[in-house]
Amino acid sequence: MKKILITGGAGFIGSHLAKELLEKGYEVTVMDNLFTGNKSNIYGLLDNPRFSFILHDITKPFWGQFDEIYNLACPASPVHYQKNPVETIKTSIMGIINVLELGLKTKAKILHASTSEIYGDPLQHPQKESYWGNVNPIGIRSCYDEGKRASETLCMDYLREYDVDVRIVRIFNTYGPNMHPNDGRVVSNFIMQALKNQDITIYGTGNQTRSFQYIEDLINILIKFMEKEKEELYNQLKILGREKLPIINTGNPREVTITELATKILQLIPESRSKIIFKDLPKDDPKRRKPDITLAKNLFGWEPKIELEEGLKNTIEYFKKTII
Amino acid sequence: MKKILITGGAGFIGSHLAKELLEKGYEVTVMDNLFTGNKSNIYGLLDNPRFSFILHDITKPFWGQFDEIYNLACPASPVHYQKNPVETIKTSIMGIINVLELGLKTKAKILHASTSEIYGDPLQHPQKESYWGNVNPIGIRSCYDEGKRASETLCMDYLREYDVDVRIVRIFNTYGPNMHPNDGRVVSNFIMQALKNQDITIYGTGNQTRSFQYIEDLINILIKFMEKEKEELYNQLKILGREKLPIINTGNPREVTITELATKILQLIPESRSKIIFKDLPKDDPKRRKPDITLAKNLFGWEPKIELEEGLKNTIEYFKKTII
Repeated sequence: MKKILITGGAGFIGSHLAKELLEKGYEVTVMDNLFTGNKSNIYGLLDNPRFSFILHDITKPFWGQFDEIYNLACPASPVHYQKNPVETIKTSIMGIINVLELGLKTKAKILHASTSEIYGDPLQHPQKESYWGNVNPIGIRSCYDEGKRASETLCMDYLREYDVDVRIVRIFNTYGPNMHPNDGRVVSNFIMQALKNQDITIYGTGNQTRSFQYIEDLINILIKFMEKEKEELYNQLKILGREKLPIINTGNPREVTITELATKILQLIPESRSKIIFKDLPKDDPKRRKPDITLAKNLFGWEPKIELEEGLKNTIEYFKKTII
Repeated sequence: MKKILITGGAGFIGSHLAKELLEKGYEVTVMDNLFTGNKSNIYGLLDNPRFSFILHDITKPFWGQFDEIYNLACPASPVHYQKNPVETIKTSIMGIINVLELGLKTKAKILHASTSEIYGDPLQHPQKESYWGNVNPIGIRSCYDEGKRASETLCMDYLREYDVDVRIVRIFNTYGPNMHPNDGRVVSNFIMQALKNQDITIYGTGNQTRSFQYIEDLINILIKFMEKEKEELYNQLKILGREKLPIINTGNPREVTITELATKILQLIPESRSKIIFKDLPKDDPKRRKPDITLAKNLFGWEPKIELEEGLKNTIEYFKKTII
C-alpha cells in the first residue's frame, strides 16, 4: 500500500488532499505544527486506521519512509505569514531542505507546493511557467515570495545535482471549505463579513483581478501531477519545450474583479445587510494575476471544472457552520 | 579595542578587508571553510597578535562576541558556485541565518555582502537600489542569485522583526590582487590567458558591458558603511526616501565592453602572444549591468577613485607572481 506524507496536512489544502488520498486507499501521514493548520480540519480522518498525525515543525529535520511527500507546509496568507516573517521564510526554506534531504535518502517522490506569489507583481500577463516574475526582495511580503522562490531553486538544485524526483506546482488563489476564516484573504474575508453583516472591505479600486480556483480542482491536479510516471513526465516536458523543468501552474484562468467577487457573494447571501466599502491598497499588493494553464492542460488534460458560483456556495455553507 | 569577525575572510574581498582593519588597530577574526578562500591570502596576517583564524563552515551555527560582523562567506563566481549548487544556496541562506542569530543574541552590528546578481538580467539601467530585479528562479545561476535574494530578505526580516542592526551592500563586479586565478570571471580569465599566451575567450559578441570596481574602492566603502552610526544612517536614509532600508550599491559606474577590457589587458601585457576569440554566451548570462551609486555618494561622499588601467596593472603584477 502506498505510503504518503503530507506536510502542512492539517491546513486548508492538506486536509482536502489527505481525505482524497485516504479515499483512494492509501496510507496517509499528516505532519503539521498547527501554526495555521487546525486539527478540526482532520477530525473526520483521525479514526481511519490508515491515517496518522505527527505534530512536528518541518524546520527541524525528521525521518520516515514514504513513497510520496506532498510539501504543503507554510503559512500562505499575508495576515499569517507577516505575523512572524523570520519563521515564515525559515518554514519555506528549511522545510523544503528537510523534505529534499529525506527524498534524497529514501527515494521518495516529492511534490512541492509553490505559489503564484513567486511571479510577484507580474509584468507579463497571463503568467506562463517560463516567466521569471517581478518580486521585491526586501519588502514586507518578501518573507513569503522570496522564501518560495528560494524553495523552488532548492528543488531544482536537488533535482539537477542529486536526481531527486521533485515536481513543483505553482498554486494560484484557491478557495473552499476548511479555509481559515481569519486568513485575511479576499474570499474568506468577504464571506465572513457578509455573514456577520459587516462592511465588505475592498482594498484599492476593486478593479484589480484575481483568479479563483476551487479546492476540488486543485486536489485533482495535485494527485495527477504526483502520480505521473517520471520518464513519461520528462518525455512530455521535453516535447513541450520544458526539458527537465517539472513545474506547472494551477489555477482558474477566469478573471474576476474584486468588486465582482464581492457582489456575487452578496447575491449568494441574500439575508446579508453588508455594504461594500473601499480602503487603500497595502504595500506591494499585486495588481493583476492570472495563470496560463496550457502546460497542465497539455500534460494532464486537466482544467478547472467547478464554476465560481458553485464553489462559493459550498464555501459559504462551510463558513456558516463555523460561526454557529 | 573593537572586535571584528569576517566570514569568508580568507577570500578575495575578505583578505583585503582583514588587512585594512588590522591596520586600523582592530582585533580581527577571520572565519572561512577554505572552499574558495585560500590561506595564502592571509599568510601575511597570521603573525599579527590581533589576528585569529577559525576554520569553520558558516552553514553550521557558531558563537563569539564581536562588535562587528562582515558576512562575506559564499562562493561568488559561477565556476565555483555551480560546482555544488545545493551547498552554494545553503551557504548564503543558512550562513546569514547563523550570522543574524548571533547578531540578535550579542547585539553585533552586521554588514551583509550581497551582489549585483540579485538584479539578474536587469530591465532597468543603470540599477538603483529600488529596482526589484529580473531573476530566473529555476535556472543554473539561481543557487547564487536566489540564495542572495533570500539572504537580503532574511536581513530585512531580522531588522524589522528583531531590530538587528544589519546593513546590506550589493557589490558589483570587483577585481584586484588575491582574486582566485581560476574563478572563471572575466578579469582573471583574460589576465591568466594573456600571461599564458592562450587565446582570450569572449563569450557572446563582446559588446555586453560590465563595470569593474577595484578592490581598494570597495574596501573603503565597506568600512565607511559599517562604521556609520545607526541613528545618523537611518536619518539620512529617511531624508533620501529610503526609510529603514540600509542597502547600497557599490561598484564602478564606468561601463566597459568585454572587448575593450580584453584589448586593454593585452596592451598592459605587451609581451603576450594571445589572440581574442569568441564563443557562445552561457545560459542566463546578464547582458548588461551598471550600478547607480548615487545613494552611496549621498550617504558617504564616496565614489570609486582607482582608474581601470591602474587597477589592472596591480592585478597583473599579482597574477604574474602567482604563476611563477
